[in-house]
Amino acid sequence: MTDTVEFDTVTPPDEESRQAALARHGQLTKPPGSLGRLERLGAWVAACQGQCPPRPLDRIRIVVFAGDHGVAARGVSAYPSEVTAQMVANFRAGGAAINVLAASAGGEVRVVDMSVDADTGEAPYKVRRSSGSIDVEDALTEEEVLAAVAAGRSIVDEEVDGGADLLVAGDMGIGDTTASAVLVAALTGTEPVAVVGRGTGIDDRAWMRKTAAIRDALRRAKPVSADPVALLRTVAGADIAAMAGFLAQAAVRRTPVVLDGVVTGAAALVAEELAPGARAWWVAGHRSTEPAHSLVLEQLDLEPLLDLGMRLGEGTGATAAIPLVSMSVRVLAEMATFEDAGISGPAAD
Amino acid sequence: MTDTVEFDTVTPPDEESRQAALARHGQLTKPPGSLGRLERLGAWVAACQGQCPPRPLDRIRIVVFAGDHGVAARGVSAYPSEVTAQMVANFRAGGAAINVLAASAGGEVRVVDMSVDADTGEAPYKVRRSSGSIDVEDALTEEEVLAAVAAGRSIVDEEVDGGADLLVAGDMGIGDTTASAVLVAALTGTEPVAVVGRGTGIDDRAWMRKTAAIRDALRRAKPVSADPVALLRTVAGADIAAMAGFLAQAAVRRTPVVLDGVVTGAAALVAEELAPGARAWWVAGHRSTEPAHSLVLEQLDLEPLLDLGMRLGEGTGATAAIPLVSMSVRVLAEMATFEDAGISGPAAD
Repeated sequence: MTDTVEFDTVTPPDEESRQAALARHGQLTKPPGSLGRLERLGAWVAACQGQCPPRPLDRIRIVVFAGDHGVAARGVSAYPSEVTAQMVANFRAGGAAINVLAASAGGEVRVVDMSVDADTGEAPYKVRRSSGSIDVEDALTEEEVLAAVAAGRSIVDEEVDGGADLLVAGDMGIGDTTASAVLVAALTGTEPVAVVGRGTGIDDRAWMRKTAAIRDALRRAKPVSADPVALLRTVAGADIAAMAGFLAQAAVRRTPVVLDGVVTGAAALVAEELAPGARAWWVAGHRSTEPAHSLVLEQLDLEPLLDLGMRLGEGTGATAAIPLVSMSVRVLAEMATFEDAGISGPAAD
Repeated sequence: MTDTVEFDTVTPPDEESRQAALARHGQLTKPPGSLGRLERLGAWVAACQGQCPPRPLDRIRIVVFAGDHGVAARGVSAYPSEVTAQMVANFRAGGAAINVLAASAGGEVRVVDMSVDADTGEAPYKVRRSSGSIDVEDALTEEEVLAAVAAGRSIVDEEVDGGADLLVAGDMGIGDTTASAVLVAALTGTEPVAVVGRGTGIDDRAWMRKTAAIRDALRRAKPVSADPVALLRTVAGADIAAMAGFLAQAAVRRTPVVLDGVVTGAAALVAEELAPGARAWWVAGHRSTEPAHSLVLEQLDLEPLLDLGMRLGEGTGATAAIPLVSMSVRVLAEMATFEDAGISGPAAD
């Protein structure tokens, strides 16, 4: 057993505020329950904030964790590793999908280079370049794992201290769905073929290479699957380790998170091990087409808000769902009650 | 056979612009297809506009058609009819769910009193107060049907001439899901029990009354189900007839529409009869919990963007989906291409 990273105890969202929000939903000028999932979603935000009605989500922060993966050299992706650094530049220039979706959803994007295999400029949290090829060697050293998890924790502290009302973790890294699939398989007891997805859109030959890499990495992961730090060391990467720290600390700091797809999902499974109960602070933004992502949702017992066949990562699936979260908050804060509006209640039967 | 209302021929959205949008999706800095439904949605807007990239959706108009229904006197709703007029006042005061969701989605709400059983103030398109109780008598006269359909058509002309980029039709009327269920059953050849929903949230006794009313109205509707005007006269209402005219004319005016739930869905089935091909100009915003709405989606071959267990009407399900439509447009207009950003394409295999 390795030393583990320590997170403060996660306490659940405030049940009293949730109940107050659900009761308020019965007083607003609509049939009770008629907004369906939006009602429960708004009540969840109220519970996370500990107040009803909830305050507006004025500061929504999307943190994209970038890192390369040694396993990319096995030909598991449709794109070469150099794309990771190029996309970091694209994020900073505002030209990527996550930039556009974030602007549309009222969120801001922050990019963190954890382990890109190139010099991307300012990178205060960078742990190393790339990672070991997980089919044959450890992704990281234990020190690197601890540094990456601590980075994710520090980033949450910065964001929450800066007033963040809602957080998203996004991913960027050629090869990252391979590592994620291994983590999901290890933590859910699933066979390799059931977790292999098309990632960026690989062909059948790349799919076979990816399956072989996942099979080999999973063989290395299984003996350490009960130890989150050892598991991150063996088959993750600094980007995923940082995301795990981020998701755990968001829960510690009582800040709601919208989860994205399979890469943040794999990190979320680890985060729930690092900080049990953290999942109560997360909502699933969408269901990705990656098969391992459905395993994550099942394991965490999360029902996604969207199911649009997305598989881009970067936090895009989460960010596409943010307007629904904002709407759910505004409904509780801004709608008139039956009493305010002088509207008749249900007829006597 | 009655005289029918005439709509200009509907021509399909521009296929060249759709193809240009799909091709552009292959050049933007993301794996092709990785935004899933959002890619096809953006391509649809481009096709509706006849340009790629599409222009921003700057003017989104949500028109709520209000009307009372004589069948409400049979006890088919959880609320008394007086709520319709009270809700019209609530819409005008900005306190209803549609007001809040519209503000969040960047849309504006317009309320049109077609047949509210009260004086709601300015009502230039009002056809009558309430409607006949459709289980035993016609909802409208033929003249009223023609006036209501023409009202919907005129409203679209006003909105499109005023620069509307995207339209939503919403409904408000105690008893309107009963009329809608009858229309859906008549136009899809479905048995009464398969279309009866809980509407505003009725109990089992009201459900039995609603089922009986739908059964009786459907018996009256079946002989005229092939004649849209006669069908509207027999079992609809001025609100639903106006919505049918609205949805048909939006297609004639080549303006995209996001459809809401079962009431606009019933109107959409009629609109497709009035103006064949109109459905190509509509996207389904959501799947409502009303069973008849799923029949509408199947009949129109539309896949909803959201499935959140909503059943409020007013256009809320459509409006909740508007941010996705806006995002799909902005992706095409604002994302960098691989060439712009100097990013490598797929690796050679």
